[in-house]
Amino acid sequence: MTQNVDRETVVSRLLAADDILILCHKNPDGDTIGSGTALCLALQQLGKNAAVLCSDPIPAMYDYMPITVFDGSFRPAFVVAVDVAGIQLFGERNNIQEYAEHVNLCIDHHGSNSGYAYETLVDAGAAASAELLTTLIPEMGAKITPEIASCLYTGVATDTGCFRFSNTTAETHKAAAALIEAGADVERLNERLFESRSHARVIAERMALESLEFYYDDRCALICLTWDQIQAAGVAGAELEDLTSLPRSIEGVEVGLTLRQQKDGSFKISVRTGHDTNACNIARRLGGGGHPRAAGCEISGNPDNAKHAILEEVKKELDRADAEKAQ
Amino acid sequence: MTQNVDRETVVSRLLAADDILILCHKNPDGDTIGSGTALCLALQQLGKNAAVLCSDPIPAMYDYMPITVFDGSFRPAFVVAVDVAGIQLFGERNNIQEYAEHVNLCIDHHGSNSGYAYETLVDAGAAASAELLTTLIPEMGAKITPEIASCLYTGVATDTGCFRFSNTTAETHKAAAALIEAGADVERLNERLFESRSHARVIAERMALESLEFYYDDRCALICLTWDQIQAAGVAGAELEDLTSLPRSIEGVEVGLTLRQQKDGSFKISVRTGHDTNACNIARRLGGGGHPRAAGCEISGNPDNAKHAILEEVKKELDRADAEKAQ
Ligand SMILES: [Mn+2]
Ligand SMILES: [Mn+2]
Repeated sequence: MTQNVDRETVVSRLLAADDILILCHKNPDGDTIGSGTALCLALQQLGKNAAVLCSDPIPAMYDYMPITVFDGSFRPAFVVAVDVAGIQLFGERNNIQEYAEHVNLCIDHHGSNSGYAYETLVDAGAAASAELLTTLIPEMGAKITPEIASCLYTGVATDTGCFRFSNTTAETHKAAAALIEAGADVERLNERLFESRSHARVIAERMALESLEFYYDDRCALICLTWDQIQAAGVAGAELEDLTSLPRSIEGVEVGLTLRQQKDGSFKISVRTGHDTNACNIARRLGGGGHPRAAGCEISGNPDNAKHAILEEVKKELDRADAEKAQ
Repeated sequence: MTQNVDRETVVSRLLAADDILILCHKNPDGDTIGSGTALCLALQQLGKNAAVLCSDPIPAMYDYMPITVFDGSFRPAFVVAVDVAGIQLFGERNNIQEYAEHVNLCIDHHGSNSGYAYETLVDAGAAASAELLTTLIPEMGAKITPEIASCLYTGVATDTGCFRFSNTTAETHKAAAALIEAGADVERLNERLFESRSHARVIAERMALESLEFYYDDRCALICLTWDQIQAAGVAGAELEDLTSLPRSIEGVEVGLTLRQQKDGSFKISVRTGHDTNACNIARRLGGGGHPRAAGCEISGNPDNAKHAILEEVKKELDRADAEKAQ
């Protein structure tokens, strides 16, 4: 069991430590990398030896961050994890497991944090770990330099979809204001983080839009991708996952469906709904499950059968919602 | 010639006035409608008679704003324009011209404001008129109610592309924080304003992505739409204009081209470039012009000829940029 600690304790632990190793989560995002780099720079500014370790390579889009990657040149005396909600999220590479089992301190914003560290500070109200560090770093007596500000802005902006997601609070905007005043290069960062789509993403969107169909007076939009199409487009993982939000994002669409054929021929179906219908109701009747607005199931059969089966359940749920409204 | 006035003067003019008519600009956006409605609510809160007038209908997406539309039921004694940079932007309908020529006060954030009002307050550093009003309304002694906060948040968020555009400053984020604290329904607003794409927009994107081609090691991306394709898709105006930013927004693309065939068969070409090349150099050699990063020209001929002609100029500009870099 971890000890939950307050901000003052965290500050005193960090000020007392040296030869500090900072751990990020695998498949690193802007928040874990931005927070890790910012904390590392702040500790170095205070005269300490510190470096960052991640199981996976740092994505090229974050190469503007002046990150000190741990190269084994010192023996870590204090291990801090940032933005890592569970021990399984450290990954396997770069010998990270050697340190992951003895984390002295975890700084995080995930309410689901499993408490794997000796001591833990979780601010579940913070939209990003970087939001938490925006006030914590000055409390450590370190200055938010323009470099630190750009790292923290990256974390805050990426975890909130540029202040669009529902985790964005007044505190998030106050953090952004403080970081811009401290010199974050917000114009260049926004251009880099949000104005650019990867080649793979564009190819995936083209494939998705080509297959887009509308049903039930355009209240249902459906994307259906066969295994052959996915292979021919050469897209995978994140690009395909991102597509699942596309059908529901179209004006007037209450139910968005994404059907992706697996190698074995079966279809993985993602169901997203608006405020009127329940995605879980739809998925459950086909043996799946999930949340009220995002759920999923699997169906075997050819594309037409799969479409037919899921559309029938969508129709029932739309009818149920209409009946409820009419009452 | 207008008199430029400070915030205190604006406050005293508004507090002294009654039977106030607030004018918005034509083709109303979130800022002019949000600012106009917020100012109207604040004046009503102070016990005054006030209403809003716009030449064009209020778009349905803003129907959550409790706007008092001017119905001629009082004789305006004081006319205020919000977010209107020039007299030609008032439009023609709803008898707005009757009032547009005698505007007592203009509150705006466009540095280009032409000074058509008797007195003008322009804060060119504000990202939106709503940002300016976020501090001005409390200075009037009115409270930012949740309704006013939602109107002003709409203005700030839409004029900045949800805090993404380069006009976003620390003050913009401070305004957002204040508005969320005052009760702006930010989660619902962001969903409504930014999560939804129109049907026409999706159709236009599909058409554009289907025609997407890459040249010169993917440093140039090109969309070419024939008149027949545009007619078949049934899209026009804004949706087509928005597409011009698509090719350049792809990772690694330095020159983005959009070719749209006109009814007479000729092609309207939009050229967008990154930091290395000059769009105007490219367009000028084909008789066009524009800015360093956004320019345009027109070419007659069939699609292949038009593509060939513009791509040749792109090649020259890429070669020039490479030679410059090599020096
Ligand atoms: Mn995070
Ligand atoms: Mn504006």
